[in-house]
Amino acid sequence: MLGKLRVIEGAAFVAAPSCGLYLAQFGAEVIRFDQIGGGPDYHRWPLAPGGASFYWEGLNKGKKSIAIDLTTSAGRELAVAVVCAAGEAAGLFVTNYPPHGFLSYQALRPVRKDIICVRVMGWPDGSPALDYTVNAAAGLPLMTGPVDHDAPVNHVLPAWDLLCGSYAAFALLAAERDRRETGAGREIRVPLSDLAAATLSNLGCVAEVMSRGVDRGRLGNDLYGTFGRDFMTASGCRVMVCAITPRQWSALVTALDLGEAVAALESRLGVAFARDESARFQHRRELFALLEPVFASRSIDSLAAALDAAGVTWSRYQSVHTAVTTDARLFTRNPLFERVSQPSGFDYPSAGPPATLVGTARRPLAPAPRLGQHTDEILASVLGLSAAAIGRLHDAGVVSAPEAFA
Amino acid sequence: MLGKLRVIEGAAFVAAPSCGLYLAQFGAEVIRFDQIGGGPDYHRWPLAPGGASFYWEGLNKGKKSIAIDLTTSAGRELAVAVVCAAGEAAGLFVTNYPPHGFLSYQALRPVRKDIICVRVMGWPDGSPALDYTVNAAAGLPLMTGPVDHDAPVNHVLPAWDLLCGSYAAFALLAAERDRRETGAGREIRVPLSDLAAATLSNLGCVAEVMSRGVDRGRLGNDLYGTFGRDFMTASGCRVMVCAITPRQWSALVTALDLGEAVAALESRLGVAFARDESARFQHRRELFALLEPVFASRSIDSLAAALDAAGVTWSRYQSVHTAVTTDARLFTRNPLFERVSQPSGFDYPSAGPPATLVGTARRPLAPAPRLGQHTDEILASVLGLSAAAIGRLHDAGVVSAPEAFA
Repeated sequence: MLGKLRVIEGAAFVAAPSCGLYLAQFGAEVIRFDQIGGGPDYHRWPLAPGGASFYWEGLNKGKKSIAIDLTTSAGRELAVAVVCAAGEAAGLFVTNYPPHGFLSYQALRPVRKDIICVRVMGWPDGSPALDYTVNAAAGLPLMTGPVDHDAPVNHVLPAWDLLCGSYAAFALLAAERDRRETGAGREIRVPLSDLAAATLSNLGCVAEVMSRGVDRGRLGNDLYGTFGRDFMTASGCRVMVCAITPRQWSALVTALDLGEAVAALESRLGVAFARDESARFQHRRELFALLEPVFASRSIDSLAAALDAAGVTWSRYQSVHTAVTTDARLFTRNPLFERVSQPSGFDYPSAGPPATLVGTARRPLAPAPRLGQHTDEILASVLGLSAAAIGRLHDAGVVSAPEAFA
Repeated sequence: MLGKLRVIEGAAFVAAPSCGLYLAQFGAEVIRFDQIGGGPDYHRWPLAPGGASFYWEGLNKGKKSIAIDLTTSAGRELAVAVVCAAGEAAGLFVTNYPPHGFLSYQALRPVRKDIICVRVMGWPDGSPALDYTVNAAAGLPLMTGPVDHDAPVNHVLPAWDLLCGSYAAFALLAAERDRRETGAGREIRVPLSDLAAATLSNLGCVAEVMSRGVDRGRLGNDLYGTFGRDFMTASGCRVMVCAITPRQWSALVTALDLGEAVAALESRLGVAFARDESARFQHRRELFALLEPVFASRSIDSLAAALDAAGVTWSRYQSVHTAVTTDARLFTRNPLFERVSQPSGFDYPSAGPPATLVGTARRPLAPAPRLGQHTDEILASVLGLSAAAIGRLHDAGVVSAPEAFA
C-alpha cells in the first residue's frame, strides 16, 4: 500500500525501528542508516550463538542499510543528504536522535523545506527516559503482581516503546497526507512520557484517582471492574478466563455448567451478573469460589473442549517456547510467519505485518539487511553519486560496505 | 492534519476506540455509533461517583455520537448507511464487530465499493480473545514478576489492545493513501493474537527460544541483556535505573561516584562495561552489589540531584495518584492536559494527542459526547435526512436523542 514512500530511519532500540518496520511491511522503502560497526542496539540481546543480535534483525526485517561514520562531519552531511533527498514521497524521517543535534528539524529544514520528521523522545524536554523508567513514573509497577507483594513489578514487554512505534507510523502518515494537501512539512515529537500520560487519561485512570483521591491498589491477576482471572485446572495447567460482555459471561456459565449455582448466588445477592459487569467484579470472590472447584476438578483437555464449544474467552498460560514451538494459531501454522535465512546465519520463521489485507497475497518476507548492505545502492539511487564518488567515500572511511553480522 | 477525513467507529473496549481517538485528535471527524442505552463498554470501570464511565469518556473524547437501535433491521441499515456514506475522504470504518455479521466487508462493499474497513479481532479465525488471554498465550505472564513467584503475573496495562489501536490508525491511513492512488478500498484485519506473535518475532524472542531450545525464565525487575533494575534508597523511595548505552552507563558511574570500584571490577573480570552491554547483564549481580549500598545510604533528594546532573536514565517508582497529582512533567504542568467538563459531570484534566506538532498550537480539547448527542446532526449532515425523516426515526425508536450519562 505504501510502495511509493521512501522513509529514512536514523534510530535505535524499539520505538522508532518498529515504526520503520511497520512502514516497510506495507511496502515503503525504508532506509536505515547506522554508524559503521553498528549503533547502540546492534549487539542487543537476545543474541544468536555466533553473537549476532536476534533483536536487531527482528526489528529491521526488509529495510535497507547504509553504514556511515557519523563521528565525522562528512558522514553527518551524508546522513542529512540521505534524509533530505528529493522525491515527492520522500523526505520522511523517523528518528530518536536528540532534538538539538545535527539531525534537528532546524538543521534539516534548510536542506529540505518540506521535510517531515517524526522524533521519538524520552521526556519532551529532551531528558532521557526509557520504557522502564516511564513505566515506573506512570505508576503501573505498583499495581502489577501478587496482592501481597511489597515491591514494584516491572513489565517485561516494552509496551510504551511498542505503542510509540506504531503511533509514530500513524503520525508520519498523517503528516504526509497533510503535506500532499498543503505542501508543508513539520516536526512531530512523540515522547514516551506523553504516551504514558495520555494513555492513563484515555483509560480513565487520571479521572479515577482524582475522583477517588486514592490509588486502585493491587488486584493480582484479577481484571479491574469486570470478570477475569487465572484458574488452575486438575492437570496443573493454568488458564486465563475473561467475561467482560453478557455473551462472554453466559458462555462461561454454560461451559462450566454453573447455571443453577450462579442463579442461586444472584438471587441471594440481588444482582444479575450477565447484564452487570460491575456486579461480576464486586462479587468476584463469591464467583471465584464457584468456579475454582470446577476448574480444579477437570482436566485441561475436557475444559478446553467445553470452553471452546461455548465460545468462552480464555487461554492457557504457556511459555514463549511452548507457544513458538507448539501453538498452531499463534505460530506454527500462522500464515504471518515465513522461514527466512537471516544475517545471523540462523534460519527461522519470522513475522510479516500483523495486519491481514483480505484478498491480497502476503508479500514474501525479506530478511534484515547486513549492516551496510545497501550502502552503494543508496548512494547511487538516492543521492545520484557516481561510482567514482562512492569510491572516494569508501576510501575516506565515510561509508562502509556490507559487514558480516556481529 | 486530518481535518478532511470522516471516520466511522463501531466498536467497544480499548483497541478500536483508541484508534478512533487518535484520528480525532489529529482533526478527523470521528463518528461513533452505539446501541441506544450504550454498548458493552458504556458502563466499564473506572466509574464516576454518579455511575458514568471514566473509561468510556476517556476513550471517546472529541468524537461524535449517534445512538441507534442495532437490534432492529432499520437500525442496522442506518448504521450501514452511515458507514458507507458518500465523501471522498469518508468511507473509513474502524470496528471490532465480527467479520461475518451485518457489518462484514461483504455486506458493506455493495453499498460503497471503495469502503475501507479496519477490523480489530481477537483471533484471526474469529474466535474470541482479549488482551489478557492473548498475553497468557504469548508467554509473557510466566516471565513477569518476582523470580521466586510460581504463578503467572498478568500485566495491568492492556498493552496489546493499545498497540492494536495505534497500529489500526496507521493501517487505516495506509489504506486511505492507497485508495487515493488506486481508487480501491479494502478490508484490513488486525487480530490481537497476530500483533502479539509478530511482536515476539520483532523483538527477537521467537528466534531466541528456537535457537536456545528453552525459555528465558523470570528475571524479576532486571532488564534482559543490559543493565537495569530497581534500587531502594535511604529514604524508602524506590527507583528504576537503566544504562543501555555507553553514555548512560558512564553517567550512572559518574553520578554514584563509582569510577574506581567499577574499574577494579572490570580489571578483575577482564571486561569493559561501558562498551559492552552484555557484560553489564552477565555480571549484573556484582554490579548490583556495588550500586545497592550507594542507593541505600543516600536520600532520594541527594540521589535525584546527582542522577539528573549526570544525565542518568532513571525514575522514581510512584503510584498513579502521586503521578497524577504531583508530577509536573507527566501531569500537573504537562501541556498535553487541559481541564474539561466531561459528561460524567466531573471536571478534570484530560489529555490531547501524545504527539507534539512543533510550531502548531494545540487544538482546544473536546469532551466526550453524551450518548446520542449528535444523532440528529449526523442524520442530517451525513445522510442528508430531512427533519421529518429524522422525526420518523425517533418515533419508531430506531435512533435516540442525547441521553444523560449513566
